[in-house]
Amino acid sequence: MKISLKAIPPSGFSGNGIACGLKRSGDADLALLYSDAPAIARAKFTTGSIIAAPLTVSKKHLKLSKTFRALLVNSGNANCFTGKAGIRDAEESARCLGWQLSIPASSVLVNSTGIIGKRLDIAKIKKGIPGLVSGLSGSGIHKAAKAMMTTDTFAKEISVSLKIGGKTVNLCAVAKGAGMIAPNMATMLCFILTDANICGQALEKALAEAVEISFNCISVDGCMSTNDTVLVLANGRAGNKIIASGKALGDFSKALKLVCLELSKMIVMDAEGATKFIRIDVCRAKNFCEARRAALNIANSALFKTAVFGENPNFGRVVAAVGASGLGVREDQLKIHLGSLKGRQVRLKVSLSGGDACATVYTSDLTPGYIKINAEYN
Amino acid sequence: MKISLKAIPPSGFSGNGIACGLKRSGDADLALLYSDAPAIARAKFTTGSIIAAPLTVSKKHLKLSKTFRALLVNSGNANCFTGKAGIRDAEESARCLGWQLSIPASSVLVNSTGIIGKRLDIAKIKKGIPGLVSGLSGSGIHKAAKAMMTTDTFAKEISVSLKIGGKTVNLCAVAKGAGMIAPNMATMLCFILTDANICGQALEKALAEAVEISFNCISVDGCMSTNDTVLVLANGRAGNKIIASGKALGDFSKALKLVCLELSKMIVMDAEGATKFIRIDVCRAKNFCEARRAALNIANSALFKTAVFGENPNFGRVVAAVGASGLGVREDQLKIHLGSLKGRQVRLKVSLSGGDACATVYTSDLTPGYIKINAEYN
Repeated sequence: MKISLKAIPPSGFSGNGIACGLKRSGDADLALLYSDAPAIARAKFTTGSIIAAPLTVSKKHLKLSKTFRALLVNSGNANCFTGKAGIRDAEESARCLGWQLSIPASSVLVNSTGIIGKRLDIAKIKKGIPGLVSGLSGSGIHKAAKAMMTTDTFAKEISVSLKIGGKTVNLCAVAKGAGMIAPNMATMLCFILTDANICGQALEKALAEAVEISFNCISVDGCMSTNDTVLVLANGRAGNKIIASGKALGDFSKALKLVCLELSKMIVMDAEGATKFIRIDVCRAKNFCEARRAALNIANSALFKTAVFGENPNFGRVVAAVGASGLGVREDQLKIHLGSLKGRQVRLKVSLSGGDACATVYTSDLTPGYIKINAEYN
Repeated sequence: MKISLKAIPPSGFSGNGIACGLKRSGDADLALLYSDAPAIARAKFTTGSIIAAPLTVSKKHLKLSKTFRALLVNSGNANCFTGKAGIRDAEESARCLGWQLSIPASSVLVNSTGIIGKRLDIAKIKKGIPGLVSGLSGSGIHKAAKAMMTTDTFAKEISVSLKIGGKTVNLCAVAKGAGMIAPNMATMLCFILTDANICGQALEKALAEAVEISFNCISVDGCMSTNDTVLVLANGRAGNKIIASGKALGDFSKALKLVCLELSKMIVMDAEGATKFIRIDVCRAKNFCEARRAALNIANSALFKTAVFGENPNFGRVVAAVGASGLGVREDQLKIHLGSLKGRQVRLKVSLSGGDACATVYTSDLTPGYIKINAEYN
């Protein structure tokens, strides 16, 4: 398996990112990812009950169509809590892009990220679309990643290639996210492009497994968002024999997990205001879900996070967080090892003495920087 | 009903607070509340699975004995995650106080608050007990309240008197708490003294109802603690006809609710680093529990709390928190009214359009001050 931290386009994929004026800063805010061949798609969305308008539209398109060609994403505005007008805006952006690309609107998937509750300026998006399309290129996937950023300080991208059945299969993924990050789905956007030839069922299984141990295992602030999306497009251009099960699916799944896990970790690395990257390993739990629950309860403890920020080895806060996790862990079952708090990387190991399962969760510290960013963000 | 924000001792109750050397600052750290007549007791403790040693000992005493005479509380050390040695320390403190007061150890209830995971210096407590006992006085209840404080900036006390069956019944309560505050039980200590003559069952019912709408409706940081306790002692010295049901219980319950609610609000007022006192009213929910869940999900959102700190009316974060609360609230059912963010008092009203139930939750903003306090606390 070859891994690169740059966005290397799989066969048939291109991208672009431009500034269409949604952000007052003038930074790039409109992103396009494009496949020149029809691609199947599978996605995981936020499990919150209030979801953004573009997710409603994308879910409808995922039901209507079997294959997809384009992903349109804007930053600077989440197009959420915008009612029927928000749905119409999302639909109009898909229609306008479809027209420009000469593809059906239903083969366009859309997403948005930014402030919640403000109407999207659809005129700016429509005005930006022709230039967005005309500038499509292989190297433009990096531009697309940059145009999705909100409070992110760097674009998150990764590429992996591996041999499946003698053919080279490529995956390339971009993500955004730095705050409002909590599992189910982790609060962020991630788009994975692959030229693998894979059946829908196998893709769905691989995606579900990868998300479970990656985006659902990170937390910055315990806040789930309205726009969370992980979406994979597979256009089959690698020409491999269709992946359905067995070793081929195992290899593909492994690559997909790597991609998702590395992007998850980048999001935590870029957590708003963070000075620490914290890895929490919980072992000897009854099952993976219980291990993850204990780990996330620690990860979401404001007291644990501030202690790490202060390089203050107050492991009692880990005890309190595990005790409050609802798992019934008793004091005599609990072992805690908190590594050095100096330096950027911090590691916490917790043993529950109740079984054989483990989970690893990544999180950040809670700092005055986080507060400054979120007190001022609008 | 007469209300005072000072600790006025009900008949037969006295208190004291001294510095026995547990706190490096030299501040008072050992508190005693005492009844000269046997008092029945009822309590609510943290629902976390890891509880502090003194809670284990107090729970045992509550099973062993029918009446109680004394409450011993230290601050500066939570005596939690201290294993069997911690239990022995808590037992020894009860035994030593019982000996000094010439009462059985099992009529002493104990509690601790402070750092988790460090052995209690029981020698200091034992050395302090004689002076603690000899200094007991009616006005000493205020001293006891001060000696329970950790990061609190003021002592929390309230007194209420009312007529029940022609007799004056008095309640006086003290509480501590400023951080690690989240429901089930709210993370704090509260001790309520009353001279009411009331049967155990009625006291239990009144306490459960009062806690539900007070300490279980506040949150500072979403962190449940290992030492949470609300405990009421009733010594019957008011000489009223025993309260068991009907109007007498109704009146007593109302007074107890007022006491618990006012102390809860004082805890939020004193929240670590807070600059805002936020009242969240959720109405039109299916039932009280759902209304409270929505309100607490908002109250525990780091993004909402930082927005209020920044006086940034980002109501989209309220939308996201309600959507993530697991109640299935739809966008078109949700109405939000966020009052002015200038000034110390902030009010948020949320309507869910799903029923007739309401809940009110109190919380604070999340500030650099909170982080400073908790990055340094040890």
